[in-house]
Amino acid sequence: MREFKKLTPYKEALRLMLESLAEIGEVEEVPLDGALGRVLAEDIVSPIDSPPFDRAAVDGYALRAEDTFQAREYNPVEIKVIDEIVAGEKSGAKVEPGTAVKLTTGAKIPEGANAVLMQEMAERERDIIRVLRPVAPGQNVAFAGEDVKKGEVVLRKGQILRPQDLALLKSIGLKTVRVKRKPLVGIIVTGDELIEEFDEGALKAGKILDSNSVMLKGLVRQYFGEPRFYGVIPDDEERIGEAIRKAREECDLVLITGGSAFGDKDFAHRFVSLLFHGTTIKPGRPIGYGEKTFVMSGYPAAVFTQFHLYVKHALAKLVGARDYEVKVRARLTERVPSQLGRYEFIKVRYENGEARPIRKKGSGIISSLVESNGYIGIPEDSEGYLEGELVEVVLY
Amino acid sequence: MREFKKLTPYKEALRLMLESLAEIGEVEEVPLDGALGRVLAEDIVSPIDSPPFDRAAVDGYALRAEDTFQAREYNPVEIKVIDEIVAGEKSGAKVEPGTAVKLTTGAKIPEGANAVLMQEMAERERDIIRVLRPVAPGQNVAFAGEDVKKGEVVLRKGQILRPQDLALLKSIGLKTVRVKRKPLVGIIVTGDELIEEFDEGALKAGKILDSNSVMLKGLVRQYFGEPRFYGVIPDDEERIGEAIRKAREECDLVLITGGSAFGDKDFAHRFVSLLFHGTTIKPGRPIGYGEKTFVMSGYPAAVFTQFHLYVKHALAKLVGARDYEVKVRARLTERVPSQLGRYEFIKVRYENGEARPIRKKGSGIISSLVESNGYIGIPEDSEGYLEGELVEVVLY
Repeated sequence: MREFKKLTPYKEALRLMLESLAEIGEVEEVPLDGALGRVLAEDIVSPIDSPPFDRAAVDGYALRAEDTFQAREYNPVEIKVIDEIVAGEKSGAKVEPGTAVKLTTGAKIPEGANAVLMQEMAERERDIIRVLRPVAPGQNVAFAGEDVKKGEVVLRKGQILRPQDLALLKSIGLKTVRVKRKPLVGIIVTGDELIEEFDEGALKAGKILDSNSVMLKGLVRQYFGEPRFYGVIPDDEERIGEAIRKAREECDLVLITGGSAFGDKDFAHRFVSLLFHGTTIKPGRPIGYGEKTFVMSGYPAAVFTQFHLYVKHALAKLVGARDYEVKVRARLTERVPSQLGRYEFIKVRYENGEARPIRKKGSGIISSLVESNGYIGIPEDSEGYLEGELVEVVLY
Repeated sequence: MREFKKLTPYKEALRLMLESLAEIGEVEEVPLDGALGRVLAEDIVSPIDSPPFDRAAVDGYALRAEDTFQAREYNPVEIKVIDEIVAGEKSGAKVEPGTAVKLTTGAKIPEGANAVLMQEMAERERDIIRVLRPVAPGQNVAFAGEDVKKGEVVLRKGQILRPQDLALLKSIGLKTVRVKRKPLVGIIVTGDELIEEFDEGALKAGKILDSNSVMLKGLVRQYFGEPRFYGVIPDDEERIGEAIRKAREECDLVLITGGSAFGDKDFAHRFVSLLFHGTTIKPGRPIGYGEKTFVMSGYPAAVFTQFHLYVKHALAKLVGARDYEVKVRARLTERVPSQLGRYEFIKVRYENGEARPIRKKGSGIISSLVESNGYIGIPEDSEGYLEGELVEVVLY
């Protein structure tokens, strides 16, 4: 039995791990409708102006603004309506002085017109409208390219696609989009003490229900990945070795829980050549990483911490995702002490600009994860934060 | 052509709409592994203590704390190791004065012991350990029920299930969980001007690519729903009526875009008995609602606003979801004027505690949705906010 000779500082270990991973090259071309939450594999340049033409922003009359400059309620200007179109149509008429084309919202502005008079601002009698107030040039016109210009980069590689992003892609004529292949993430849960089904007798005799697998599958799905579960494996060196070999052959990343410390039964790290083993994070210190494999703790709260501090960033790197964390500023509702030399992961409940630390201790505690909706990370050189201090919360 | 006689205030319309909708009764029992993002249909009460027994929080020696009180580095206490167990096993031995049981993290504390000495704090020679410092009662012990107590409500109805929630459910013995059926949401897009495929000639002639359908499908999926698309339908009263009838028969909620104003070709609202039509929101004013049907604008940015201000809340009501909005406090980077009498939806980019208003105007503008990651809502009685003012941002 050894202890960790030296704990690698959190960010140093993070850097080592990220440097060892390369972005996945493969892209998939998927229909826009199936691209929600996927990560864009390339910059998107608009092939068109959007809107593609000057169009009416309201229902009304396309006319020459100059014709209305003298219009007053006591001195209306009369203008002749020479055509009527609806959105989707194009008028063959040219708007000459003293004339107008009636149109609906979205319709193309006819040649000669430079403004739209709102329908309810005009009094109409047969083919004549009476204009009571001046209209400014450009008024109620949405100009070509006002939303997006041809040749403009509208979305950048690494964007996590949201509904509005898909709308933009559709509006510039795309039907499909190239996104990164989802990284396949192998999950191996180890431990003699674990059972997969409720069994009161077994629990009384010292067994524990495995909850890491379902949590890690969910976290992997949340962060761009596709989980593949290799089962709950007892502390048997051969069987653990076999699972690790298989998972590493098949997957882009492998997560092993249990056996990250130096206990007599901690076999997992023997099969992986580790870049680091033991970092300053708390909880979750015994984490090891090497050869695209994370050797993680057995306790759920430690696993959760290790996922957010390391694995999440590994997945983001594999797909090249940007902006995958929601970070907010918050005022601490109470003092949070922190151990010098440790990077403490403090679970908080963020609400109304305030962060309330969730106090439950112990890396086996799942209920504190449930109560919290984010965390603050306190660096190694800090003894913590005072009540009322402004901190950065990463939401989850 | 009529104009809106009266705009219903935003919150008044919201209240009317929500009151008219009832929570969906049906629940589905799904495996934990498929429950991510689903909405919990009932409170969950733990059937067990978790952990189910007092257990070791570290690898070490379970002993009586009292036996170590006199231990000093210059005067070690010797204790005899009478058994060894690993997590998942139960020791048959009873810890009497002067004895200890070696165990690994997670193992059940044997009878008689009340603390665990960390392995690396003991010097061992055959079956004797030398203790150099006192151990406090309870030290390194995770007590039964410390995480969750039997009979405790661990998750409440309406919770949107996250990975850590699934872990908690698994840890108390559940294999499945009862969640709300996903509301089926019919989407009907109307407008003669709309085309579904890129066609440069058509675009030049005044057509527009439909982007509302892909956006609404994504938004519905983001907020607990299952979209069903009824296609892009031209401005034909009969065909629109037919689609609306079919969608309302099949779905829990129906969204129609286009035809929400009082233009000559705006047929949609003729088929729905509306509770309100026209509210104070800006953009998106012409929204109508009645009989589980939203009559929405044709312009994407207006549709997006209407979705976030109304439809999102309708979906949350249908499934009884709580905490479905992420609201953060932010300082405005510049002044935001707002029209009195309008509830203005201002898109912002939230970053580092600051909200930067996205200035692009026009309800046709999709790029402003893409640039932004949240909004602020400015009530009807406010003329806006000053630079530096603290506002609430709803993230999306």
